[in-house]
Amino acid sequence: MKSIDIREYHTPANGIFFKAKRRLLSERSSCQKIEIFDTEFFGRVLMLDGLVQTTIKDEFFYHEMLVHPALLSHPNPEEVLIIGGGDGGALREVLLYPVKRATLVEIDGRVVEVCKKFFPWLSLALRDRRVKLEIADGNQFIREPNRMFDVILVDSSDPVGPSAILHQREFYARLRECLKSGGIVAAQAGSPLYYLDHLRKKVAFLRRLFKFAFFYLGPVPTYPGGLWSYIFLSDKINPLRIPKKEPSAGLRYYNLDIHRAAFALPEFLSKHLL
Amino acid sequence: MKSIDIREYHTPANGIFFKAKRRLLSERSSCQKIEIFDTEFFGRVLMLDGLVQTTIKDEFFYHEMLVHPALLSHPNPEEVLIIGGGDGGALREVLLYPVKRATLVEIDGRVVEVCKKFFPWLSLALRDRRVKLEIADGNQFIREPNRMFDVILVDSSDPVGPSAILHQREFYARLRECLKSGGIVAAQAGSPLYYLDHLRKKVAFLRRLFKFAFFYLGPVPTYPGGLWSYIFLSDKINPLRIPKKEPSAGLRYYNLDIHRAAFALPEFLSKHLL
Repeated sequence: MKSIDIREYHTPANGIFFKAKRRLLSERSSCQKIEIFDTEFFGRVLMLDGLVQTTIKDEFFYHEMLVHPALLSHPNPEEVLIIGGGDGGALREVLLYPVKRATLVEIDGRVVEVCKKFFPWLSLALRDRRVKLEIADGNQFIREPNRMFDVILVDSSDPVGPSAILHQREFYARLRECLKSGGIVAAQAGSPLYYLDHLRKKVAFLRRLFKFAFFYLGPVPTYPGGLWSYIFLSDKINPLRIPKKEPSAGLRYYNLDIHRAAFALPEFLSKHLL
Repeated sequence: MKSIDIREYHTPANGIFFKAKRRLLSERSSCQKIEIFDTEFFGRVLMLDGLVQTTIKDEFFYHEMLVHPALLSHPNPEEVLIIGGGDGGALREVLLYPVKRATLVEIDGRVVEVCKKFFPWLSLALRDRRVKLEIADGNQFIREPNRMFDVILVDSSDPVGPSAILHQREFYARLRECLKSGGIVAAQAGSPLYYLDHLRKKVAFLRRLFKFAFFYLGPVPTYPGGLWSYIFLSDKINPLRIPKKEPSAGLRYYNLDIHRAAFALPEFLSKHLL
């Protein structure tokens, strides 16, 4: 059987390639192009607009690092909001905690539908009775009154394209208003190698908005450059005070040593961001 | 001008690609295939046997993490040996310290010659009066009597192919005999994603050979999976006791926060290596 040769471009001049055994889906939703492949090395892969979002082999790096630093740092996370994350991977990690409700707001209903079919081991989490699924624009959703959460997770796509609004000052200012006392925002913040200028602008306004605004890092092999950044925002919780709780058993990347280590920034970042 | 499309295979089914403006060199030395390109995104790139060794854009991740954890941990590194590293990048980092002598033993004289020509900003280090260059097999070199060093750095290629011997127990047992009191070995240990089985075997014998045998990690965007592992070996120096010295000014990745953080192992590694 002839394999399909797939490329993800990180710039017009470089990227990753992988061979797929089968193309399971290729369609254009109202928001974006959705493709799903069975690949030889990374297992099943979800791509949106030509960019890898989730692979079976390495999704745990990303989902664990988006969720656990915030959830474990919060003393009692009852109400959790996830903006984006229609594949259900971040939700699965959130449900490891005794939350009362986890609200997932995904703009593209088709992502949720196709992930239910092709990534059932991720989207299984959507069936949990604590979950409330809303197909809506996250930026609109948080404008409505009485949106209050202990932890808000922003599982968006890149700062260019349709998710651009989810990387701007006004969005974060509103997120801050949606936090209960002691609340925490954690967000994916893109590649520190390819989007350093975006990070620099972001850190400037985030440090004015929140008492604690920290970048942290973790590897994601199939994301551009293999190194990913996240932000931790709170007016009360300092993430450098290592949580005294134990992480859930069965995690594959995150532990308390990694929690501490993730906040160490290399020279090329700390110089640019401070 | 038509660009050249280059692929580096990490498995037969995946890898990275990049476009080159020019192929500057392609030849077969007595040891391996040597290729040098000017690429659009990564700048000048050295490939050996089809694998990226050094790019101008990201070589600092690798060279700084191979060299500084050991050199900064040693109280007085006077005699340093580098096995491999013919491009001169690791040597450049070593010479930031007040060493008396840095001996570089590279098996492939052609690598040194072509890097002098095409990577002068790396191999400039070779002209330092403290440097002794030997074109020889590192594994033979250390068998000779009176080879004693404060720090030995192993800047080898992957654990498959011609460098396989530099990843085996017997080699490390002899390195231990070549260490002065309080000496340190640091070595690149390959991809923790693609070579986890190699790492597991290595940690088993290294922990029997040395009092302190620690893996540590750092990103290297153009290396397979973007995440790289290194080992720190010593009978006296515990790398988890953070050095009290300040790193050299002008580094781009390494600092003391990173030193500490690099030794934190993710769950999928600590479970497999302990």
